[in-house]
Amino acid sequence: MTDAALLEVLMAITGPQGVLHEAADLAPYLKEWRGKYRSTAGIVVRPGSTAEVAAVVKLCAERGIGVVPQGGNTGLCGGAVAEAGQILLSTDRLARIREVDAEGDHMTVEAGVILAQVQAVAEAADRLFPLSLGAEGSCRIGGNLSTNAGGTAVLRYGNARDLVLGLEVVLPDGQVWDGLRALRKDNTGYDLKQLFIGAEGTLGIITAAVLKLFPRPRSVEAALVGVPDPAAAVALFGRARAEAGGSVTGVELMPRLAIDFALRHVAGVVDPMAEPHPWYVLLELSSPAADAPLAERLEAILAGGLEAGLVVDAAIAASEAQRKAFWHIREAIVEGQRFEGGAIKHDIAVPVAKVPEFLGRATALSEAMVPGVRVVGFGHLGDGNIHFNLNQPVGADREAFMARWEEIAHRVHDIVADLDGSISAEHGVGLLKRDEIAERKSPVEIELMRRIKQAIDPAGIMNPGKMVRT
Amino acid sequence: MTDAALLEVLMAITGPQGVLHEAADLAPYLKEWRGKYRSTAGIVVRPGSTAEVAAVVKLCAERGIGVVPQGGNTGLCGGAVAEAGQILLSTDRLARIREVDAEGDHMTVEAGVILAQVQAVAEAADRLFPLSLGAEGSCRIGGNLSTNAGGTAVLRYGNARDLVLGLEVVLPDGQVWDGLRALRKDNTGYDLKQLFIGAEGTLGIITAAVLKLFPRPRSVEAALVGVPDPAAAVALFGRARAEAGGSVTGVELMPRLAIDFALRHVAGVVDPMAEPHPWYVLLELSSPAADAPLAERLEAILAGGLEAGLVVDAAIAASEAQRKAFWHIREAIVEGQRFEGGAIKHDIAVPVAKVPEFLGRATALSEAMVPGVRVVGFGHLGDGNIHFNLNQPVGADREAFMARWEEIAHRVHDIVADLDGSISAEHGVGLLKRDEIAERKSPVEIELMRRIKQAIDPAGIMNPGKMVRT
Repeated sequence: MTDAALLEVLMAITGPQGVLHEAADLAPYLKEWRGKYRSTAGIVVRPGSTAEVAAVVKLCAERGIGVVPQGGNTGLCGGAVAEAGQILLSTDRLARIREVDAEGDHMTVEAGVILAQVQAVAEAADRLFPLSLGAEGSCRIGGNLSTNAGGTAVLRYGNARDLVLGLEVVLPDGQVWDGLRALRKDNTGYDLKQLFIGAEGTLGIITAAVLKLFPRPRSVEAALVGVPDPAAAVALFGRARAEAGGSVTGVELMPRLAIDFALRHVAGVVDPMAEPHPWYVLLELSSPAADAPLAERLEAILAGGLEAGLVVDAAIAASEAQRKAFWHIREAIVEGQRFEGGAIKHDIAVPVAKVPEFLGRATALSEAMVPGVRVVGFGHLGDGNIHFNLNQPVGADREAFMARWEEIAHRVHDIVADLDGSISAEHGVGLLKRDEIAERKSPVEIELMRRIKQAIDPAGIMNPGKMVRT
Repeated sequence: MTDAALLEVLMAITGPQGVLHEAADLAPYLKEWRGKYRSTAGIVVRPGSTAEVAAVVKLCAERGIGVVPQGGNTGLCGGAVAEAGQILLSTDRLARIREVDAEGDHMTVEAGVILAQVQAVAEAADRLFPLSLGAEGSCRIGGNLSTNAGGTAVLRYGNARDLVLGLEVVLPDGQVWDGLRALRKDNTGYDLKQLFIGAEGTLGIITAAVLKLFPRPRSVEAALVGVPDPAAAVALFGRARAEAGGSVTGVELMPRLAIDFALRHVAGVVDPMAEPHPWYVLLELSSPAADAPLAERLEAILAGGLEAGLVVDAAIAASEAQRKAFWHIREAIVEGQRFEGGAIKHDIAVPVAKVPEFLGRATALSEAMVPGVRVVGFGHLGDGNIHFNLNQPVGADREAFMARWEEIAHRVHDIVADLDGSISAEHGVGLLKRDEIAERKSPVEIELMRRIKQAIDPAGIMNPGKMVRT
């Protein structure tokens, strides 16, 4: 089939607005934002309905054409990169909110709805959809589910996979699995939805989902806390859990250097404390009850922490604006780093108690490997998830530094493995870590993954080459 | 291979204490407590370690012998029933607590640990393992995970599958998958543990698990509430969620007849209210904070409910003893029913808002099909999970009544299907519902289940014939 003939058949399925093939139209879909990969596919299809997705996939199955699903194209591991000859299938026109059932605490949305819109629709119904992450203004919920996104609310509400009641999936042969259930309990077979969540589109394309909603927090208290070191941060987290249990909804760890970068480069970032501290914890308590005594509790946690030498200084947000300003510091870290030259990034998790050991060993290693490297290890302490990022030494050659990514990452990941951790806590596998997980996981586990891939996608057309080699 | 030769090989693996073949020794393993099924296997193997489980399974794989895993033998769907020629593999000697990490909020236990012991060990470490159900004194955690058990704490803490961080599984070829991770985030491939949880042993044998622990509740308040009807109960639940959010940890619905049965037949059951009411809600709030203002909140919920006509009368537990007495009423329902002749049982779930419609329609249907039938529809209202049980009419012939199980269940399940519900909310599939789910699920879904079974257990030796026909 010629490209022209293929375009014609695709247009017959989706209408002309659903098929892009001019370079200028393709550009935003082909670009990968870290610049590590570049798609070379010549066709982007944008189906407007589940039926259109199914028809496109069926066509591709019949002709043996690889299909690469793409949501908001904000992924960090090359999971949505399509090669020449493959079709890039964007979900950006699958953008309907199908149902909001506030009483039943769930909503049904199509894959292409932007995460921030999901949050806003939930809020308009006086509910919370808790998934929250840096890219929420442009990532799409289908991509969040396909990559089992994490973010800042995992400690209390779980990862993306914990927020789903049901799924609709277009399978690799073009059949549609309608698993759009809104049930809290259903033990009538294998939990198929958990197989597609986090599968990065290698087993099918999620086209819609029933999402769990939660009561909105009506009391929120936050503090930015200066602490001497990561061990103190872990101990402070332990105290917070003991004092406030499920009300602890945010525990982010940041080194001073991260704050410096944010202050230097990002508008609106203000240091609320007079003196700098080596490490910071952003600690947030929240409750759906309007009269929860969270302020007293937060003060008690901090007072106890001061007494125990875990806390050097702390600023409690006196207003909603100040609370948002604290989160703005946290969110500005990634942007701040961009202005400091090349950065080699890791997304790791270890058991929470081992975070200090990880940071100590990985920092020492990095400084030994690259004298002058600037270590920015920050992230979701409550989940043991650290974004261990290395900014190049001041004045160093960017290309030469970045060329060492694999060499350094491998050694950092050796430490992670030694601590029984994960080398991809929340960003996934894609192309970036496919071969490394194959090396690090047991042959038994890789064989199980291959068998599942083979069972669901025997022709290998769904997001070929991502996550697991077949 | 003769039976004698097989026994000898098995004994070489497990030692003589690990193999039973005398009728008297086999009896407790072969009996199924509802009496609907009876195992006819001639050999029970009780391995004492994961390595022994692996060796037994490898042997069975080589010889094409079916293996039926069994935990506490408390299942309700015939999932642990073994036929002649198959080997029944009991996990009751896999009973070690491997690790308790209170700081890290997790513990690692072997499959044969009894649920109540898991709870007790967690409590001794000042933590909560929230899974709680009627059989907790004899069911084993491996069975709980293999059947994705539900129970009374699902509303706040989720089903069994939500309480697991990692698994160790003996696969159908005798290889061991070591997925015993203690990570809160790990996106390095398909979430294999979710495939084995709830698979009823058809894909492998869970031998150990890393379980999540939670802060222990330090404030608990409960009330037994008389309500006019299930619709009022649903509305009261809505008010409770709005007022107390995540503090609502128990919402059980009971009809008066269930209370009557419990009062009549079970020691220690006391009706705390002077007048009978048509329906009751057992409402419990809890919090890990010692000073949570739950009493005030519970009173406010009930006062608002009274004013809105949702509550007729309520008894608030004035002591821990009284709170336990309320739960004793709830837990005595099943035992009470046993003294009222035959009972046809359903374990269904519908979206919470549809519970009143389900109860109305299913009750009318049952009374039309069996004049005089005594309907006891009770259960976990917060999850939409109703145990819709039908006790035989007074004086009716037990056998004749019980012979109508399938006919009645099919019609009740038609109503469930009409309400987008589940015909097995928490008890699973086993033999009891295997053919019915195959009829009711879409061919696409059954085909997906078959492909997964075929991929992981191509020889079909793991718990043959359960859940899905191959």
